[in-house]
Amino acid sequence: MAQPFLASAGDYVDRALAGFARSNHDVVALHTDPVFVRATTPDPHRRVGLVSGGGSGHEPMHAGLVGRGMLDAAVPGKVFASPHNRQVYQASRAVAGTDGVLHIVKNYTGDRINFGIAAERLRHDGIRVERVLVDDDIATDSDDTATGRRGTGATILVEKLLGAAADGGASLDELAALGGRVVARSRSIAVASRAHTSPATGRLAFELPDDQVEYGVGIHGERAARSISRPPLEELVGRMVDDVLTKTPAGDRALLLVNGLGATTAIELHNVFAIAADALAERGVTLGGSLVGTWTPALDMKGFSLTVTMLDEDWQRLWDAPVWTATLRK
Amino acid sequence: MAQPFLASAGDYVDRALAGFARSNHDVVALHTDPVFVRATTPDPHRRVGLVSGGGSGHEPMHAGLVGRGMLDAAVPGKVFASPHNRQVYQASRAVAGTDGVLHIVKNYTGDRINFGIAAERLRHDGIRVERVLVDDDIATDSDDTATGRRGTGATILVEKLLGAAADGGASLDELAALGGRVVARSRSIAVASRAHTSPATGRLAFELPDDQVEYGVGIHGERAARSISRPPLEELVGRMVDDVLTKTPAGDRALLLVNGLGATTAIELHNVFAIAADALAERGVTLGGSLVGTWTPALDMKGFSLTVTMLDEDWQRLWDAPVWTATLRK
Repeated sequence: MAQPFLASAGDYVDRALAGFARSNHDVVALHTDPVFVRATTPDPHRRVGLVSGGGSGHEPMHAGLVGRGMLDAAVPGKVFASPHNRQVYQASRAVAGTDGVLHIVKNYTGDRINFGIAAERLRHDGIRVERVLVDDDIATDSDDTATGRRGTGATILVEKLLGAAADGGASLDELAALGGRVVARSRSIAVASRAHTSPATGRLAFELPDDQVEYGVGIHGERAARSISRPPLEELVGRMVDDVLTKTPAGDRALLLVNGLGATTAIELHNVFAIAADALAERGVTLGGSLVGTWTPALDMKGFSLTVTMLDEDWQRLWDAPVWTATLRK
Repeated sequence: MAQPFLASAGDYVDRALAGFARSNHDVVALHTDPVFVRATTPDPHRRVGLVSGGGSGHEPMHAGLVGRGMLDAAVPGKVFASPHNRQVYQASRAVAGTDGVLHIVKNYTGDRINFGIAAERLRHDGIRVERVLVDDDIATDSDDTATGRRGTGATILVEKLLGAAADGGASLDELAALGGRVVARSRSIAVASRAHTSPATGRLAFELPDDQVEYGVGIHGERAARSISRPPLEELVGRMVDDVLTKTPAGDRALLLVNGLGATTAIELHNVFAIAADALAERGVTLGGSLVGTWTPALDMKGFSLTVTMLDEDWQRLWDAPVWTATLRK
């Protein structure tokens, strides 16, 4: 396998962020030292700043989701590594509202620690902070681990719904409670047929036989508990839908995210979506909205994930509300 | 290499189109028998319908670019194969305006023939038709071939500019003339470090040593005239910018498209963009606009292309005009 196309001089994550901000200067501004991305035109109705972040390699998450109707700031770490707490702290200070700041954190140890340290410092400064911990990946849903489920694609849906609620003037406590409810109603599962290319070595992170898929792969190349013989796509997606619905509260209307893990084509993702939407309909679940694309990749992994958020209360209105970021616009 | 994730029952291109239309039903509608995609809310000021199309495998081109401010209809063929002239004919009839229909065609023999036959039939019906032939790929810029340069990423920019002009009420003749001028000021070059996976065989379309890149690869896996030893990215992009500018009319303000060929990550594309924007600035060219992303891929090829459109007259206004398609919104 060949080396990725990355700048040889300087830090390639910083270079990518500079390029991203330059190409989207109407929507975002890049802060350096420490590094974070913030919206150029914050919503005047917001009382709470929304901050997310995490390791790079999952673009457009999170910087591509900064803008009106979604995040106020995103804090990127290096590839697959947590941002430093100083980044989180400074980004949060920069966008905190009159009722403080909400941290949307994927459930990984490094992210929890760094967002936690930043939160302590912010509270010390007199800024209110709450956290929504996203833990949607059912592949890690086991009593055997103390760390709990990983956070993956559901983060996109959580950020969209919370962004709309924040625009509506929700308080910090309301947003934290809503975020907890959305997380509780969101579950994901991912499969891969080829690992990502390591930027450091130019090699695949793991090898997989041609006739196998990794069922329950993580977005950093975490191996699944098991590889399985590859079934026809209809069967594979049907199994994924069943497994996700088993772990999701019952309901009859949902959001569906079909997420490419990096090297998966639009033709493949729309095949998956067509099959998954049919499978959900057969199980009595209609779609209140959908996203199909590369939203939470693992660099250039070949595979995809499904995320279902079972809709509740007035979430449809939050989903349909306008959003204007570099990547998601509606 | 593993098989792509495609439906095993029925035609996977049709299935993808059905999924795409279902996920974007607020923007597009899918017509079947024959297959084409059209906008649900045509612009009332348009006198001319804009129709493009070509082989599948280059998504979001073209169906993702149907909507307000851009295409009225897109006609997809099977993977890397021209659509049938009956599709082009019916799509054109469906969206023709009071001053007819404009065909935006990438320069490949099959597309030329099928759009040509459809145009003859339309004229027979009394519908005016003109064609803009996009031929931006300098890798095929040789006196040795009668077929001329291939059409690639510039198609995106041509469609955006013509869409805005059509919304402004331009006539068919004006649009055809503008299209010709935009094409004449647009040039591209593509490189790849790994071929795409053939949907038919699950194998790479060609093999390339780790330390080589294919300089001047086509979007259907056409090999370049030469493979080159892989230089640092700064040097590679600098060479591409030089080669493109040599073949582009002189100017000091341009649009820049950094296009992923399928499996190229956002981090890589934004590294390329940052380097290319600097390289253009060093050569006296500032950016009037940019797009960075997977806009005209070759299925899941690993690589990228650069397209420069040297701005002229009032094209900046056309670039900045609103657009609302499934994939491009501004």
